[in-house]
Amino acid sequence: MTDRREFLKGTAWMGAATVAAGCAGRGAMNASVGAPMRNFRTSPMSRIRVGLVGAGYRGIIAVKRFANVPGIELTAVCDTRKECLDRAVAEAKGLTGRAPLAFGPGDEAYKGLCDSDEVDVVYNATAWDWHVPISLYAMRAGKHTLIEVPAATRIDECWELVETTEKTRRHCMQLENCCYGEYELLALNLCHLGLLGELLHGEGAYIHDRRWAIHFDDQWQHWRRRWNERHAGNQYPTHGLGPICLDLGVNRGDRMDYIVSMDGNSRGYAAYAAEVLPQGDPLRSSRYAMADMNLSLIRTANGRTIMLQHDVTSPRPYSRLNLVAGTKGVFRAYPKLGITLEGAAPRKAESHCFDEEETTRIRNEYMHPLYRKSGELSRKMCGHGGMDFLMDLRWATSMAQGLPLDTDVYDLASWCAVCELSERSARNRSMPVDFPDFTRGAWRELCDCNIMAIA
Amino acid sequence: MTDRREFLKGTAWMGAATVAAGCAGRGAMNASVGAPMRNFRTSPMSRIRVGLVGAGYRGIIAVKRFANVPGIELTAVCDTRKECLDRAVAEAKGLTGRAPLAFGPGDEAYKGLCDSDEVDVVYNATAWDWHVPISLYAMRAGKHTLIEVPAATRIDECWELVETTEKTRRHCMQLENCCYGEYELLALNLCHLGLLGELLHGEGAYIHDRRWAIHFDDQWQHWRRRWNERHAGNQYPTHGLGPICLDLGVNRGDRMDYIVSMDGNSRGYAAYAAEVLPQGDPLRSSRYAMADMNLSLIRTANGRTIMLQHDVTSPRPYSRLNLVAGTKGVFRAYPKLGITLEGAAPRKAESHCFDEEETTRIRNEYMHPLYRKSGELSRKMCGHGGMDFLMDLRWATSMAQGLPLDTDVYDLASWCAVCELSERSARNRSMPVDFPDFTRGAWRELCDCNIMAIA
Repeated sequence: MTDRREFLKGTAWMGAATVAAGCAGRGAMNASVGAPMRNFRTSPMSRIRVGLVGAGYRGIIAVKRFANVPGIELTAVCDTRKECLDRAVAEAKGLTGRAPLAFGPGDEAYKGLCDSDEVDVVYNATAWDWHVPISLYAMRAGKHTLIEVPAATRIDECWELVETTEKTRRHCMQLENCCYGEYELLALNLCHLGLLGELLHGEGAYIHDRRWAIHFDDQWQHWRRRWNERHAGNQYPTHGLGPICLDLGVNRGDRMDYIVSMDGNSRGYAAYAAEVLPQGDPLRSSRYAMADMNLSLIRTANGRTIMLQHDVTSPRPYSRLNLVAGTKGVFRAYPKLGITLEGAAPRKAESHCFDEEETTRIRNEYMHPLYRKSGELSRKMCGHGGMDFLMDLRWATSMAQGLPLDTDVYDLASWCAVCELSERSARNRSMPVDFPDFTRGAWRELCDCNIMAIA
Repeated sequence: MTDRREFLKGTAWMGAATVAAGCAGRGAMNASVGAPMRNFRTSPMSRIRVGLVGAGYRGIIAVKRFANVPGIELTAVCDTRKECLDRAVAEAKGLTGRAPLAFGPGDEAYKGLCDSDEVDVVYNATAWDWHVPISLYAMRAGKHTLIEVPAATRIDECWELVETTEKTRRHCMQLENCCYGEYELLALNLCHLGLLGELLHGEGAYIHDRRWAIHFDDQWQHWRRRWNERHAGNQYPTHGLGPICLDLGVNRGDRMDYIVSMDGNSRGYAAYAAEVLPQGDPLRSSRYAMADMNLSLIRTANGRTIMLQHDVTSPRPYSRLNLVAGTKGVFRAYPKLGITLEGAAPRKAESHCFDEEETTRIRNEYMHPLYRKSGELSRKMCGHGGMDFLMDLRWATSMAQGLPLDTDVYDLASWCAVCELSERSARNRSMPVDFPDFTRGAWRELCDCNIMAIA
């Protein structure tokens, strides 16, 4: 796909990453500082042999993605559907010259992949219902596991992932690609450099008109629409929430304390079905627990506020909001990048707009080192404008070098807890609902200095 | 100030307004349809003799404003401070050639103004603590009353205004100028024309860096900063909420059911004081119950959601958000006008931006009739870019013609209720708090067809 020299140029920083990762004196196997899997490391891995479970809508893209990342070998593929399995094997062979082992079809085929000696890491891109059982099985079979978003949707599932990763001493990471967008990385850098002052507030969203998903058949994410028939609240929180949690240091000195959530009416899917589907189509009579608009407010233990929105069924431009406000400045990514830093320019208190020139200057000056070094290369890669590539590069490099991953099971659990907690609040007149503390108190002591740190 | 011919051009529509106001068969003295003051009318008034109470920061501008509006005569001025009183009288005399009666100085001087036979309407631009007692006194003295925002801050005050206006049969209107902004009027027009489809969600805010207010002395709004020392929650909700309530038809077929509200930390004022005030200044030790960021979610009886924000102490560009989303389109005013209507242009589901050309086309095609006819004139007038002028024009014209005013005491009470309700929720871990129904059930039946209707 891409010339080897480009890799060398774009990923040259990886060799030096060891220096930067971990704070002085912290890190390796440091179960003593608190929650056992924080800063968890393994031995360096000379090969990263990945088994892909779920070669559907999201998984098939991963075959391409992994072919581009140095060190990753796709050694096995699993799907319940023969045609998806065959396609993935053929695609991998075409790209790399090697055919991965094929597991499937059938609902239990993933066990063969997880038990295989040819696999070190299980990448789980299955339907939401299968995220947790397959990941638990994988860890119990000694494999690291990487899970698509949301990795879990219920509190008991979150706890089970936490306890299993702690017991099996395997990585369990949610692959939240939006943490690796240029603007999300820029915001993170501004926060880490303290340029926004003391952080006060963050906003994230998943506003994405996905009504066309009504056309998917059972092969392609019909399970997701059916999920929306049953579940209220925000069932897809992590694209907006993940980056904001990293900005605010959630689980690294702060934690999410409680949430209130509110649902509006549910109109979009049903109206769209009535408009585009033929008379007699059974989907025309489907009704949805999911509101067109869900809003959640989260308060952290340190008194910061987070607002989350979810809307996938109304005709709005795409937005993840991605706003962070502090005592010295504010950053917002949508609908257009806008940054104000106090002191950087004469204060225009009455201005209604962000200054474009100033925004561009800050964007260039404070671009995240990861993006500065590999951003240009990432934009040539498949997968969400480069976010997927940077993400894959980070976890693969960290594993190869035996470093902690950027996010861990406590991030996974607290971000995903919003699925159940928001539904409980929204169904109960927006009553506040407490977050469990998946870190069991360790959130207070943990530093964040090795998130996406590169030399 | 302005040439008389300009008035005639800009306000020619006013003569024909009688035709449009009120729906067929509804209106005049129709206490029978429900809440007694809905669509309340008086006899036409050939002169509108206004007494201004409070000639301070906001009030002194009104002397100029009223001099520009045909029909309004400023016949009396009151202030507790002699220098403010003298200045207002001199200003009025300079503008109109007539000196208004002067009441004051002294805390009880407003009673003389309210009792004066030279006054029909009391315009109340005093400090928040004085809004309600003066307005109650004015109505009991037989005067219509117009009150600055927020007209009231406690639920019992809201009820007292409702009951007193119903009993005295006098107008009691909150002058929420942001209902008369070009964009707010445009949104209202789109909603009324049904172009956004079934309405789902609205957002409003008061994000305005007012930290410089720390420099005000006791003459100039120090009372407002002191209010912020004592009160949490959103104490200035109406600029964002009022226009959204009109868009959604709150009190005109819908009502606000309950609210949850969340406060973050309070840093801005104290940090700013430490930065700009000299050592030893007592304000350096002031602490604030007001958070830098307050967020509220409101659910309506018909299942619509409203998000409100308040932030006056962090370095952010000004914003009222002013977003309305429906099943067929979305409108947002900040940070930049953006409108999408489904069907108006090929759908770009993946677009991250509003189409500028399409936005401009919609803005021009669906400009509110009030703004189309008098907007250009209004922009030449003093007072918040023309909003004040359009507002004054509307209430003065409606009174002159004996028509209902655009908003009434039920709007005032439900919008202002947010001050106390948001504080109760924010101080109680964001517990949901119910709105009182100030209309006593009449919200179900009332149409909105005479809001800002012009021929």
